[in-house]
Amino acid sequence: MEGLKAILLICDGMADRPVPRLGARTPLEAANNINMNTLALQGECGLMDPIAPGVRAGSDTSHLAILGYDPYTAYTGRGPFEAAGIGMDVRKGDIAFRCNFSTVDGNMLVIDRRAGRIEQGTDQLAAAVNGMQIEDVACYFKESVAHRGALVLRGPGLGACVTDADPHEAGAKVHEAKPIDPNDQAGAKTAGIVNEFVRRSYAILKEHPINKAREAERRLPANIILPRGAGVAPHIESFEERYRLKGAAVVETGLIAGIAVYLGMDIVEAPGATGGLDSDVMSIGRTVLKALEDHNFVLCNIKGCDIAGHDGDPDAKVKMIERIDDVVGMLMREVDRCTYIILTADHATPISVKDHSGDSVPIVFWGPDVRVDSIQVYDERSVVGGGIVRIPGTAVMNILTNLMSTQEKFGA
Amino acid sequence: MEGLKAILLICDGMADRPVPRLGARTPLEAANNINMNTLALQGECGLMDPIAPGVRAGSDTSHLAILGYDPYTAYTGRGPFEAAGIGMDVRKGDIAFRCNFSTVDGNMLVIDRRAGRIEQGTDQLAAAVNGMQIEDVACYFKESVAHRGALVLRGPGLGACVTDADPHEAGAKVHEAKPIDPNDQAGAKTAGIVNEFVRRSYAILKEHPINKAREAERRLPANIILPRGAGVAPHIESFEERYRLKGAAVVETGLIAGIAVYLGMDIVEAPGATGGLDSDVMSIGRTVLKALEDHNFVLCNIKGCDIAGHDGDPDAKVKMIERIDDVVGMLMREVDRCTYIILTADHATPISVKDHSGDSVPIVFWGPDVRVDSIQVYDERSVVGGGIVRIPGTAVMNILTNLMSTQEKFGA
Repeated sequence: MEGLKAILLICDGMADRPVPRLGARTPLEAANNINMNTLALQGECGLMDPIAPGVRAGSDTSHLAILGYDPYTAYTGRGPFEAAGIGMDVRKGDIAFRCNFSTVDGNMLVIDRRAGRIEQGTDQLAAAVNGMQIEDVACYFKESVAHRGALVLRGPGLGACVTDADPHEAGAKVHEAKPIDPNDQAGAKTAGIVNEFVRRSYAILKEHPINKAREAERRLPANIILPRGAGVAPHIESFEERYRLKGAAVVETGLIAGIAVYLGMDIVEAPGATGGLDSDVMSIGRTVLKALEDHNFVLCNIKGCDIAGHDGDPDAKVKMIERIDDVVGMLMREVDRCTYIILTADHATPISVKDHSGDSVPIVFWGPDVRVDSIQVYDERSVVGGGIVRIPGTAVMNILTNLMSTQEKFGA
Repeated sequence: MEGLKAILLICDGMADRPVPRLGARTPLEAANNINMNTLALQGECGLMDPIAPGVRAGSDTSHLAILGYDPYTAYTGRGPFEAAGIGMDVRKGDIAFRCNFSTVDGNMLVIDRRAGRIEQGTDQLAAAVNGMQIEDVACYFKESVAHRGALVLRGPGLGACVTDADPHEAGAKVHEAKPIDPNDQAGAKTAGIVNEFVRRSYAILKEHPINKAREAERRLPANIILPRGAGVAPHIESFEERYRLKGAAVVETGLIAGIAVYLGMDIVEAPGATGGLDSDVMSIGRTVLKALEDHNFVLCNIKGCDIAGHDGDPDAKVKMIERIDDVVGMLMREVDRCTYIILTADHATPISVKDHSGDSVPIVFWGPDVRVDSIQVYDERSVVGGGIVRIPGTAVMNILTNLMSTQEKFGA
């Protein structure tokens, strides 16, 4: 594929706050990230608020925003993106749920929400409950990794404002899903379908040979499916329709993959990508370059920094940044002169917070024709004073497509 | 109350423009405000636009925005906030007016809009007209300071788009309130009620013993009530619902108190607070500390700088800033390590303008875990280059609740 191309490298949770153990420096400030600094030296820098200043973003809402979709309208809960991420056909108006294979006793008391952390055979269990018709609603179910799966309901008059069947704790009885507003007929219909699906899943799964075999081995049977987190599938213009760019995604989590699939981007798997601190990040980088051969935009999410942040481990975060820095160096060497690299984070996951925070994150635009500014170091505080100043996440694709000259003019 | 706390110190109208008499420095630049500078040195700084860049804010709209409420939807005129501020029960949908006790002659010509600047007895006059029922509308009236008061109408089918009964000048005849749009039935109904209220107030007040006594003393009787500035009471989520913070307000004006009351915050009175240049600002500071004992958020508004700005008096403004600087120093010494201080202004009141302007104002966030930046001086021009860069007023509470970890995550 010819012409201008772009790599959007999102280092999950990389931004941080000053860490006492690092001498009041952030992990980015403490890390030896010479390639990121070169990117800053040769690029245009600033701060980015994934959603808005101070707003704590999830990885899903942040990625939607950075890809140019208003998360307040495009984000209707995790269900639809999770389902899309495992390859299910999700259509506008469908109601989608995240689900667990769980273990219950004969009184519907939850023994284990994760069915003994089942790893094998869920594809056959899923096939046994997939495609049910309940009243005028088609119920599609597919397994995800381990004990996880997703349920998609398709039919007239459904609503997403329903409570979870999953009681979220062992020892509790399976909940009856209910409409959140008792007068919401669409919610009531969905709740009725979900409850019937849960009952039927138990009737089918408790007799399934896979579970009989598990019980014979004294393992917990995956004898029920418990849906949670209902969301109505939103209508979202595809990435290609919106930007006239053929996009690929090289990402490490199902949630981000789901968003990419939902936007019609191609998923390209990187060998050795684990989503953990041990991930083969250089393999991810090489996969990005490969994806760039037949796409002109590649979204790349590397998860490790977020894990280190959630763990509150500054040394692991610094090390992860330095490993990603090697990838940045490789990308800068390998791409041609027609390729942009944007380096940023989807949110901060500060060591002190051990969760996502609403702090701003550094961003750099590198590539042909950018207004190179005076910033020479890539970190949260050094980018202040750069040409990008401070932008919301939804500005990123506009700035990029402006540079790539693929954006239509607004007005005359 | 344990855990993280915050003081939001808003110095009314403190920001300014370069003043020739101060050597082209702003009052903040000219003042000896070493404690504010220390706050900047130890905090994260930037510029804040209360509403948006260049937009001239009132103190009411600015405080709403800084407290995180979109003023374009939450602000429906002064009436509802004024009424709430003097302790009236204002409910969503009520129509509220600011009012004057005035003096008219028998032909309804206004002799004095302020009824001889009446100071005493308005509580008894108010009681005489309070609680009227006109058609199906209940009319509540309460006196405020001096010749002022507020009227609240409660009933079905009322609208706020009506003209004032107050002609706004002596010598003119009392106006008939009218709907702004002749086809607006809700406005027409309100106008009819207002006109009847005004007529009845004259009938009742002209015979009232307080006014008979005033006339005997050759003072102007407060013989009519003239409403103006109709506003429909908005539905606003309370401060505690929105932020899960227990909030108090130590403020110097009824207007700001009204906003705080409307948001469900507790009002704490500071002894010696006058709202003027002579106000006991140190007492205000001590009251803030006291309020912090059983609240985790205290809004403090100190009015003096705004007065000096309206007066066009640079020396008075510098002096006021230096007196507030002592309060800032005291607060920094007295608070524990779990307390944030945010120092800003609700708008500029430039010496050259003698009124509110739409200039940006400096802001600093000081407290645990902030990304301390390189800024060392707190004034309008020195904070440029700080980590906050430039934010709208509505971002302030998001940034604060992000630091305080009381904000829910948007997404996963």
